[in-house]
Amino acid sequence: MPVNLPPLPELLPVAGIRCATVSAGVRKPGRRDLVLFELAAGATVAAMFTRNRFRAAPVQVAERHLAAAAPRYLLINTGNANAGTGAGGLTSALACCAAAAVIGGVDTEAVLPYSTGVIGEPLPAERIVAGLPAVFAALAEDGWKDAAHGIMTTDTAAKGASLRGDSWVLTGISKGAGMIRPDMATMLAFLATDAAIAQPVLDHLLREAVESSFNRITVDGDTSTNDAVTLVATGAAGGAPINDPDSAEAQAFGTALTALCIDLAHAIVRDGEGATRFVTVRIEGAKSSQEALAAAYAIAHSPLVKTALFAGDPNWGRLLAAIGRAGIDDLDVTGVSLFLDDVCIAVEGGVAPGYKEADGARVMARPEILIRADLGRGDVTETVWTTDLSYDYVKINAEYRS
Amino acid sequence: MPVNLPPLPELLPVAGIRCATVSAGVRKPGRRDLVLFELAAGATVAAMFTRNRFRAAPVQVAERHLAAAAPRYLLINTGNANAGTGAGGLTSALACCAAAAVIGGVDTEAVLPYSTGVIGEPLPAERIVAGLPAVFAALAEDGWKDAAHGIMTTDTAAKGASLRGDSWVLTGISKGAGMIRPDMATMLAFLATDAAIAQPVLDHLLREAVESSFNRITVDGDTSTNDAVTLVATGAAGGAPINDPDSAEAQAFGTALTALCIDLAHAIVRDGEGATRFVTVRIEGAKSSQEALAAAYAIAHSPLVKTALFAGDPNWGRLLAAIGRAGIDDLDVTGVSLFLDDVCIAVEGGVAPGYKEADGARVMARPEILIRADLGRGDVTETVWTTDLSYDYVKINAEYRS
Repeated sequence: MPVNLPPLPELLPVAGIRCATVSAGVRKPGRRDLVLFELAAGATVAAMFTRNRFRAAPVQVAERHLAAAAPRYLLINTGNANAGTGAGGLTSALACCAAAAVIGGVDTEAVLPYSTGVIGEPLPAERIVAGLPAVFAALAEDGWKDAAHGIMTTDTAAKGASLRGDSWVLTGISKGAGMIRPDMATMLAFLATDAAIAQPVLDHLLREAVESSFNRITVDGDTSTNDAVTLVATGAAGGAPINDPDSAEAQAFGTALTALCIDLAHAIVRDGEGATRFVTVRIEGAKSSQEALAAAYAIAHSPLVKTALFAGDPNWGRLLAAIGRAGIDDLDVTGVSLFLDDVCIAVEGGVAPGYKEADGARVMARPEILIRADLGRGDVTETVWTTDLSYDYVKINAEYRS
Repeated sequence: MPVNLPPLPELLPVAGIRCATVSAGVRKPGRRDLVLFELAAGATVAAMFTRNRFRAAPVQVAERHLAAAAPRYLLINTGNANAGTGAGGLTSALACCAAAAVIGGVDTEAVLPYSTGVIGEPLPAERIVAGLPAVFAALAEDGWKDAAHGIMTTDTAAKGASLRGDSWVLTGISKGAGMIRPDMATMLAFLATDAAIAQPVLDHLLREAVESSFNRITVDGDTSTNDAVTLVATGAAGGAPINDPDSAEAQAFGTALTALCIDLAHAIVRDGEGATRFVTVRIEGAKSSQEALAAAYAIAHSPLVKTALFAGDPNWGRLLAAIGRAGIDDLDVTGVSLFLDDVCIAVEGGVAPGYKEADGARVMARPEILIRADLGRGDVTETVWTTDLSYDYVKINAEYRS
């Protein structure tokens, strides 16, 4: 059961974007597993991809195509990640792009492929190609909701959000629940706006937004081979083009984009595999962003912390132990304070005077928990979001392929 | 249920060492939780302690005492780690040492304290002090078996081993099952020999042995606040002192010591919390020890790999994904080969020609599994040992304090 994940809100159509979702039987019959986005001519596109060295074939092809041509179609399949598939995987990804290009009347390089699902099995390109006529025929401006469902794998709910600016709308969808520790990019997310934004500005704004959203979440510390986030600006709203990243317009859009990305990133954590808690880990008083993140991820990845969170146990010793092994060599532990929400648990490396276990237990019983540590050595703050580690996480991942 | 953990073998007495175990009611009544070792005058001692920045009070005191005087007593309690206890924790540890010193007729600095158990609760020093007369009265040369039981916490079985050299015996015991990722030291292990070994040589040999044994195991990636391994050489066998680390005698002893440490380290993994598999991860063909270990630990710590191991699922995509995010920036994935025992699963970044899922599944059904990856870029090999991630790991750690 996801943790306080709201139902999918209304997803506003974005002028210049049509999308559709069909069943192509990639892995199992009857499941909606093929999604197509059509981008109006002239749209600008920015994308970020996984930094895992084992990058799936579609990631390699998408990056190459993005550099070569203006994208007109995004072609997404679930059920098969086309990762760990060697040279044959590249051929399959290209074949799907080529087939879509023929139907769409564009160059092969104008199609970006995305795959998600099981790693290491050959992509059944013939089934995807066979599904193309239907998905092209179904393209519609109001296809976002179906697309949000179509990109799901172990997700228990579809994830999406829309924001409206003065002169534009911004809509995004995402998927992901496990193998979640994005690094410079993320699981799959597709965002589009009808604002007109020059590509370098779009790229800059996307990088900023991802850095404080998708790149700050972790479910299990495993970075996927297929992570990708893509942002399209169609310009179809007719507003003046945003060409200057420092303009008020760019900043307003960037703020909205970051908010939407945080929303989508949180949705992934709320739907994290087996999650029963939505946990914010905030490290304050650090000397650098790097050491703040090291401490935050040491907590967020600790199986002992995560099982204590599952149990609702204010086992703060495990929190201190995680900070202590985070690789901050000159950390003076007597300067560290620790809080659960507003309850001060530890100061000067030991239990806080007046702290009562019942106060910690009251916080830990909540579905949403803030773990806050002040390292007492600087003024940098970093926040990451994560889940607990439950029986169901083990169950889901022990049974995923069966 | 531990994985192929043999029953505790006969533990040979070590001349110059007496030990005893009693119930002091540190946390629960009736549990054997207080262990004392008495070292003959003139014994040399080497010890390594955790590098976690939150070092428990006993670790800080033991390190200080070791530098100040020749140790005569090792005082160990379970049930309470005396970690995260601030200045009061130091006072408590010192009080226990001082009380033992009075009974033993030695300086306080000649007593090294060790604690293991729950973090963050005040040490009930008065119960430990009250238990001292009984544990002193029980000191005996054949107390090793009881001591192996006395230092257990979440362990399901006592761990120990003995080896006999030409002119000496070497006996050791260890404890640990969770919060296991030693770094330069380890959970608790106590080893003793009746050989005469100069302290610098003893120190050198211990560091070498720990590096390839306790420092190569991980259960959950969490480094304890209380890790410590201590080696005593009493010289009571009457052999010539070993003063040269390069001598044949030092090397023979070092080889035996390493073998015994590996044996004890493996016992900890076999008894890892919730373990159903004993897993060897060997990375070959690396450019450096550092990158081999990075890849090995990325696999050994991946919750997705560990749940697949629990399920007996040859999900090699998760293995490749873990190697890919290990931080080896210039890794050419087309040079990577992957094996489960002797079954070749992947070559050149994709599935191996002729690989059949049934072959991988046959290996994964075994209780002991070798995961072997050849990075194809150098000649360095490193090995680490780990467990799977089961329902019982979650259960044990969600319920530990209740």
